[in-house]
Order: sequence, then C-alpha cells, then structure tokens
Amino acid sequence: MSSVPTDRVVNETTLRVRYAETDAMGIVYHTNYLIWFEVGRGELSRQMGVDYRTWEEMGLYLPVVEASCRYLAPARYGDLVIISTWVEEARSRTVIFAYEARLQETGQVLAMGRTVHVCVNRAGQTTQIPPAWREIMSGKTGEK
Amino acid sequence: MSSVPTDRVVNETTLRVRYAETDAMGIVYHTNYLIWFEVGRGELSRQMGVDYRTWEEMGLYLPVVEASCRYLAPARYGDLVIISTWVEEARSRTVIFAYEARLQETGQVLAMGRTVHVCVNRAGQTTQIPPAWREIMSGKTGEK
Amino acid sequence: MSSVPTDRVVNETTLRVRYAETDAMGIVYHTNYLIWFEVGRGELSRQMGVDYRTWEEMGLYLPVVEASCRYLAPARYGDLVIISTWVEEARSRTVIFAYEARLQETGQVLAMGRTVHVCVNRAGQTTQIPPAWREIMSGKTGEK
Amino acid sequence: MSSVPTDRVVNETTLRVRYAETDAMGIVYHTNYLIWFEVGRGELSRQMGVDYRTWEEMGLYLPVVEASCRYLAPARYGDLVIISTWVEEARSRTVIFAYEARLQETGQVLAMGRTVHVCVNRAGQTTQIPPAWREIMSGKTGEK
Repeated sequence: MSSVPTDRVVNETTLRVRYAETDAMGIVYHTNYLIWFEVGRGELSRQMGVDYRTWEEMGLYLPVVEASCRYLAPARYGDLVIISTWVEEARSRTVIFAYEARLQETGQVLAMGRTVHVCVNRAGQTTQIPPAWREIMSGKTGEK
Repeated sequence: MSSVPTDRVVNETTLRVRYAETDAMGIVYHTNYLIWFEVGRGELSRQMGVDYRTWEEMGLYLPVVEASCRYLAPARYGDLVIISTWVEEARSRTVIFAYEARLQETGQVLAMGRTVHVCVNRAGQTTQIPPAWREIMSGKTGEK
Repeated sequence: MSSVPTDRVVNETTLRVRYAETDAMGIVYHTNYLIWFEVGRGELSRQMGVDYRTWEEMGLYLPVVEASCRYLAPARYGDLVIISTWVEEARSRTVIFAYEARLQETGQVLAMGRTVHVCVNRAGQTTQIPPAWREIMSGKTGEK
Repeated sequence: MSSVPTDRVVNETTLRVRYAETDAMGIVYHTNYLIWFEVGRGELSRQMGVDYRTWEEMGLYLPVVEASCRYLAPARYGDLVIISTWVEEARSRTVIFAYEARLQETGQVLAMGRTVHVCVNRAGQTTQIPPAWREIMSGKTGEK
C-alpha cells in the first residue's frame, strides 16, 4: 500500500532501470534506490522553484546525515519505476525528505525511504536554511 | 562538430546529470558516459523493436568486448544531456554501437564513444545473432 | 565514540576512497558507505567461513530488506577508511549486520549503519538459514 | 598473454570484486574496470611519490580525455583481480596510462585499457605538467 501523502507537494519522476544498476541476483542493487531518491529530490526541488544548483551557487549545501530504505520487492533491467518524493519536515537547519518507489506497470511498491539533510555553508558549518526556501520546501498544499 | 550520421536510425535520449554521477572535480566522472551510452543502446534497441530483455529471454547476451570514449567538455550536476546512439555495423556475431553526448542547452558535444559487442549464449560461447535481428539492427534508413 | 561491540566477532577491512566515489561537494557520495558495508559483510562472512559465494552455489540469497546509515563526518579522495562489521542478530530467516566506518588516520567515526537481510531461495521465497550457518553467524565470541 | 612492460615502473594492486560491481549477467559490469584502473593510477602515483592529492592541492587536475578498454574474460563476485598500471608516455601537457587486469587465481588476463589525461588548472585551461613530476612519471626503470 502506498505511503504517499495527499496533503503535500509530491513529485513523481519515472526512471528506467539501467543494466549498470542490476547485480548478479538479476535485480537492482539496493543502493541504487537511494540514488533514485536523489533524482526525485532534485526534481521536487526544481518543481518547487528552489533548484539545488541555486543553493550551491549561494554557498549552501544539503548533505545527507541520515538515510534509510525498506525494500519490499525487486526491480529488474528495463522496468519503469516511479519515484514519489515529498518533504516530510522542514526545520530551521534540517530538511527531511521521504520517498516511495513503485513499478509503473503494476503500481507495486518496491521501496520506501527517508533522508535527513542538514544545511551547511562552504566551511562545512551547520547554518540556517534561508527562511523563504524553508517556507517553500515545507511543501504544504493547503489541501486536507 | 557532431558526428551523428544521417543515413542511420539514431535514437536520442535525454538524461539529467545525477549528483551521484559527479566527482570531486565538480564534473561528471568519466565512466558515467559509458553508462549513459548503455542507456542509449537500450533505448535504440527498444525503438528498433528488439528490446534487450527479449535477447536475454532467448538466452542470448551482448556483452561489451571493447569500449572507448573521447571526452571533449565536462557536464555538471543538473545538466540535461542528449545521448545519440546508432549502430555503426552489424556483423554475424558482432555489433558495433556508436554514441555522441551533447549538452541540450547549447548543443556542445561532450563526448563521443563506441562499444563493440559479441553475441554469446548462456554457456558464454560466441554465437550468431539471429539474422532477423541483425537485419533490423543494421539500422539503415535507406536515405542518402 | 565507537559503537563496535566487544563481545562479537568483528571484521575490520580497510579501503581507500576512490575518485569515482566522491561527488561535487568534494566528499564521498553517501551511498558508497552502504557499498563499503557490503564489502565488510563479505569479508566478515569469509572470515567466519561462510563465504557468500557458497550461499549462492547452494541456491540461497541474502537480499537487503532494510538499510540505514547515519553520517557523522565526510571522507575524501585517498582517505583510508576502516569498516568494522559484525552480526547484530541471526534469526531463523533473518540476519542483521551492523557497521561502523572510521578514518584510519584519526580514528574519527564517519558513519554507522545497519542492514537487515532475509534468506530467500532461487524462486525468491523466504526460507530458513541453514542452522549450522546461523550458528556460525551468530558471531558470539564467548567473551564478556 | 600479458602486455605488462618490463622496462617501466609498474604498480600492482589487488582488488576483490564487490557485489555492487556485478550485473544481471552475473559478471562485472564493464565500466567498473575503468574505475579499477583509476584505483591503479592512484596507487602508481603514490608509489612514484606524486600523490594525486598533491596535484589538486596545487590547483592542477588530470581529467581523462580518452579512455578505452578491451574485455577478454569476465570476473565474478568475490574474485581477486590484480590491476597492473604503468605510464605509457608522459608529455609536457599529457600523460598516458596503460592497464591490465588479471585474475589472481589463474593469471588469466581479463581486460586491457588505456587512458589519456591532460593537465588543466583550476580555470580548466590546459597547462604544463610540472617538469619534475613529468620526469618522475615518465616511469622509466633504466632496465632493458
């Protein structure tokens, strides 16, 4: 069952599984889901109007400080996979993204994940997320 | 200057550079172009109607026996890159694919590559490409 | 502070950071720690005498069903990183591995992680871990 | 038959194949050899006393402008692979490295490759390799 929220801005990005992403078990190697989540995160940011490239141009970075993923079913070469991405929480110095990967053909949920990011400056020091961006990223749709 | 031929079936696939694909130089790590070429090869095969998954279902594989790439300009995170892929030559047991990667925004050529593949069976023995597929893959458009 | 237990069989493997593993932030891209944990897991298995290749030869697989990692400090190109790996729990159908990555030069802890694996057969069905292997993997040293 | 020269400084580095490096064919995905060559190149540089980190600290980079590889036999999960690396040619602005990968257990040659690098500064402009480093990298042993 899908965990995608209905009261949040959600980005949906479709990817096709690359041969490079499979392993000797014939399925997608587990860390690739976290890379796909990075793709979803980038697309959500663009969709919200705060392209991650703009962050870096301003000397701000959002490194991953925590990542987790649960794997429910395997994907295989050539499969189309939909990545749903949303912001679970946007605090003053921290953003939490959540993700769901499912098979386009059947809708089957493949994996669910979560990454925690902290805002740092060029010197690597924790710093505040610009309030305007935090507001945008809070990603509430206003719907109930 | 582009090297894409005009008398061949050419697949064009657009990819966005993933953060995972960049390196400490701030640019795309060189082996990722070869992975993008794999993506282009898969799309060309689907476009031609000989999905690589069908090959594997029939117990045939097309491992890479030679790969080369020339790098002309770097790509960076978030860039949209167009991969052009075509068959340079389809022989009885060998297929040669050629590729060009260019920046969508400017058309600048980033890289040009070539991979040679040999058809093998489940036992890993070199074997003939099914003639019908070879014919399709020869990829001649009939145009001059 | 290290989280490596003293009453468990712990494998220590040292890796040097590859340029391919860095990203545009100049540090190791986060998913590579999970790949390093896979390396540690393989080495621990070999050290315990149950090489993962033997599992696969017997038609048994241990896919990852859950993975998590906390990132405390970055690693950079050329750094030597020590991966400590141990079995946190070995149940009848599930094994939990835990990991710590630290910088060889300073001992600084870079990341801590955990992966949950379930034993499946060739058909992809959950199955029992052979009791002898489960016993070995429980990894108790008998020390207090 | 091995192509490793006898009149050059040759670095030998042994790697164990990671599961992450395999693909659905059950063998190592082809681009990983080029990553292993990067590992060999780094080790050779360290062995010669010109650690690539020192280059970057001085604002010099050696991006790959050409890469090629021939694949002769597959490697599989857990295999130990020896990477031999040497400098084929060191010119004023260009260095060419050559590589051979072979299976430790049998000595079988798996792949042979070559990468061409050009020296650039922080602005991305082609620049001269410091003559002292070029001399070191020429890698002649003086033996016949």
